[in-house]
Amino acid sequence: MPRLTELRLVALPDFPDIASGDDLAALTAAALARGGLALHTDDVLVFAQKVISKAEGRRIDLATVLPSAAALELARTVQKDPRLVELVLRESRRVVRSAPDVLIVEHRLGLIMANAGIDQSNVADPAGGEFALLLPEDPDASAARLRDRLRTLTGCEPGVVISDSFGRPWRVGTVGVAIGCAGFAATLDLRGTSDLYGRPLRVTVVGHADEIASAASVLMGQGSEARPVILVRGLESRAAHQPAAALIRPPQQDLFR
Amino acid sequence: MPRLTELRLVALPDFPDIASGDDLAALTAAALARGGLALHTDDVLVFAQKVISKAEGRRIDLATVLPSAAALELARTVQKDPRLVELVLRESRRVVRSAPDVLIVEHRLGLIMANAGIDQSNVADPAGGEFALLLPEDPDASAARLRDRLRTLTGCEPGVVISDSFGRPWRVGTVGVAIGCAGFAATLDLRGTSDLYGRPLRVTVVGHADEIASAASVLMGQGSEARPVILVRGLESRAAHQPAAALIRPPQQDLFR
Repeated sequence: MPRLTELRLVALPDFPDIASGDDLAALTAAALARGGLALHTDDVLVFAQKVISKAEGRRIDLATVLPSAAALELARTVQKDPRLVELVLRESRRVVRSAPDVLIVEHRLGLIMANAGIDQSNVADPAGGEFALLLPEDPDASAARLRDRLRTLTGCEPGVVISDSFGRPWRVGTVGVAIGCAGFAATLDLRGTSDLYGRPLRVTVVGHADEIASAASVLMGQGSEARPVILVRGLESRAAHQPAAALIRPPQQDLFR
Repeated sequence: MPRLTELRLVALPDFPDIASGDDLAALTAAALARGGLALHTDDVLVFAQKVISKAEGRRIDLATVLPSAAALELARTVQKDPRLVELVLRESRRVVRSAPDVLIVEHRLGLIMANAGIDQSNVADPAGGEFALLLPEDPDASAARLRDRLRTLTGCEPGVVISDSFGRPWRVGTVGVAIGCAGFAATLDLRGTSDLYGRPLRVTVVGHADEIASAASVLMGQGSEARPVILVRGLESRAAHQPAAALIRPPQQDLFR
């Protein structure tokens, strides 16, 4: 029987709710052990942005946010909480599009995304207050730290991807994308390779980590399932290391800004 | 040990090169048998657009294409073969963006994509001529026919997704997307569901079939690997049927056309 090329994705079981300062690598190692899974060096772990942000203390109490005049005006246009809009503006370089219920910005990291990636769902609210969760300060650095800590704890150095869900122009629905990446090639550059018939390939660069993030997103779910960490096994090579920042199209090459 | 939530993707082994008129369902059943894989009803099979187009005879000999004046002029702008540009225009409703090496159109199916999805790589060229491969006439109908024929041959009715690789505004690299879909929910609508803390979800519609297509794309590769059919096992539910046309954002809801 010929060798099958196979990819396996496993949601780490019973991953706990995360608080600021939690050791995500230790919690990951414990969840792997619960699942009877030994980490391999060629494995990739995909973490939902949410757990990274929570562990890094990126939760903001909306009661502490005073909206600026600009935020108040924009909030009227987009019909969102002015305090949330204030946080979005603080996290962004500029507003790309605004309309009722739509606020698309260029995040300070360069990501073009809705609401600067700020989330109000799945943010614990023990005292009845209202909270928002910002993206990690530097998701590529977060991924690298997590990979280093996993190596210390397990002796293995998996690839690490931090994923978020993005909407898209032209298409309905969100898909997982990679906002942080370590020990892994964010893109695959196929320039110089050829097709089955020796013809140069039309598609030359693949958004590899985005495809991995989308695959993991299928298992993560969006709601109350709480499967924020996904083990991906069977990737052929993660030799080339490249941060997720490489997935952001340079403005001068972008016809849709 | 708790039950693991797991997704398994397997590339069907030694899938043959496809010619016009080939019975893809029969070739799929044979490849499954070679891999020792019995089809389950909850499985989803992802087919690269290329094999569907080849089986449906969508290969065009460029020597038979006479470029119009409009195609000749546009070809100068985009620096592409005028015969290819002529085919792109025939397949499209309008040009969305053109620039040197860039030709983004609204395909007659509504898809906004480069070169109307027309491919010159991986198209067999036995007589030394030059060929191009168009998208299937109606990929949702192709997926439905393939699903019906698979049911006849195997007694099982898997979900069928037809995938292609799309570039994206704002981000580098292509990702797999679903252009055809049968027996499967192209999108998941989470409106009315809540998060871990009972708060309504921010993300309400997920591009489910696009995420599946991206996951399959990781195994397919883009070059000479020839793994055009991927079995996806472990999806939780494919109860709701919805064609891939549902993934195309209606123009009036699109701020980026």
